[in-house]
Amino acid sequence: MFSFPVTVRYMEVDAQGVVFNGWYLTYFDEAMAGFFNHGGLPYQAMLDAGFDVQLVRSEIDYKAGVRWGDPIVVNVSASRFGRTSFVLDFQVRRSAEPGAEVCTNGRTVYVVVHAKEHTKREIPDLIRNALGEPDPLF
Amino acid sequence: MFSFPVTVRYMEVDAQGVVFNGWYLTYFDEAMAGFFNHGGLPYQAMLDAGFDVQLVRSEIDYKAGVRWGDPIVVNVSASRFGRTSFVLDFQVRRSAEPGAEVCTNGRTVYVVVHAKEHTKREIPDLIRNALGEPDPLF
Amino acid sequence: MFSFPVTVRYMEVDAQGVVFNGWYLTYFDEAMAGFFNHGGLPYQAMLDAGFDVQLVRSEIDYKAGVRWGDPIVVNVSASRFGRTSFVLDFQVRRSAEPGAEVCTNGRTVYVVVHAKEHTKREIPDLIRNALGEPDPLF
Amino acid sequence: MFSFPVTVRYMEVDAQGVVFNGWYLTYFDEAMAGFFNHGGLPYQAMLDAGFDVQLVRSEIDYKAGVRWGDPIVVNVSASRFGRTSFVLDFQVRRSAEPGAEVCTNGRTVYVVVHAKEHTKREIPDLIRNALGEPDPLF
Repeated sequence: MFSFPVTVRYMEVDAQGVVFNGWYLTYFDEAMAGFFNHGGLPYQAMLDAGFDVQLVRSEIDYKAGVRWGDPIVVNVSASRFGRTSFVLDFQVRRSAEPGAEVCTNGRTVYVVVHAKEHTKREIPDLIRNALGEPDPLF
Repeated sequence: MFSFPVTVRYMEVDAQGVVFNGWYLTYFDEAMAGFFNHGGLPYQAMLDAGFDVQLVRSEIDYKAGVRWGDPIVVNVSASRFGRTSFVLDFQVRRSAEPGAEVCTNGRTVYVVVHAKEHTKREIPDLIRNALGEPDPLF
Repeated sequence: MFSFPVTVRYMEVDAQGVVFNGWYLTYFDEAMAGFFNHGGLPYQAMLDAGFDVQLVRSEIDYKAGVRWGDPIVVNVSASRFGRTSFVLDFQVRRSAEPGAEVCTNGRTVYVVVHAKEHTKREIPDLIRNALGEPDPLF
Repeated sequence: MFSFPVTVRYMEVDAQGVVFNGWYLTYFDEAMAGFFNHGGLPYQAMLDAGFDVQLVRSEIDYKAGVRWGDPIVVNVSASRFGRTSFVLDFQVRRSAEPGAEVCTNGRTVYVVVHAKEHTKREIPDLIRNALGEPDPLF
């Protein structure tokens, strides 16, 4: 599991005083890139190797609102691998402290594509190794 | 079914040239309010009656990218009703023309809460009537 | 003068209940493209002709907060022309009604560049004609 | 001078490959809160003391585009004090390294208001001390 710190911005908090739902997908997107980087594959290196990933599905469960100033972290883990697709799990926690409140669970499905032609490709070792063993977060 | 036009903004298009995934939740949010309004219940009137709705789950399937200038519409329909929760279906189409390409499917679950205390409430007739009969979009 | 309607989104309203300041630059950006389009030069046609415009300076005066649901318009006009640069004035009004409250004034400076090389170019007739006569809004 | 690190997000980069202009105001907003915090006055403490600040004017000069992954910092300093208003200078640099390229200069004017009534107030010592001596950045 990889833990990615996110700075919540004032403008991401809506009139109800909590982070607007759409911003979680932004957090997941940054956490995904951070996860690849942590696994030794910076996004640019993946592109240079001729591969890219496309988001095909997102699921989000909202458990508790996040507020401006909350020192949240997004935990990330690969949870399943197909032939050309893989699944990442994301879990937003109130802080980096052990046992901190779960605010949001997310699960996204990506397909691997050719970086230029955008046609599907089998998951290369490059990506498989960067993502590590499947380890669902919830 | 209700059809809500959305103006795609240049800044919503990312470096890949298509709308960034998180913006679809913004489109759905506006379409939801438009749908209530269309059903005779402006959001403020719902709040004034003592009710609010909270998003608890989102699902999005990305089918085709949307570009700046695409005259997209978001079709909206209620697809299921529970005791305190209901489900809305959203479908982004490339344009308002009949048979226009489906770009994105979305499904979101809301619970009805007391506008001030934020505790769950049974769906009142006010909301039930505004949403109409269940009619899944996909 | 050209008047561009803007749909304020719920997520653009911050915890203070009014549109967050950064969104006005988004509104101006869309209004700029709409202004060019209105002048007979869709943005893509400008690019196809080998020209692009780059923002070099923005000024914004915030007069009154805008709220979700306010049917605002952004009035646009060219206010000054240099050799390679021009200035656009933007004025956000509470609604399209004559005499509606001024919420925000904006002034932005653009330079004309080669669409590919991004080097400065004298303002071509194509752009000059689309923008019309200088007519400051404030 | 105070230096505030900003994580540029992928979704903030537009189709031209650089950060969209409106996001700089978001960066300045976060840097402003960070600056107050650094000066010993967390935003919430200011509100609790009965004061708030309202943005009345922004100026931005765009010098060079910022890209995803650039480890930018926003330098902040107070540059002028009036009776009820003060001016902050912001300077975005390509990185935290000494002499790093200047990407953007910003200057914003705030007025001090009563936290609840939103009427103007003379700058209290609380705020004056947190902001330090005037020290223009450009």
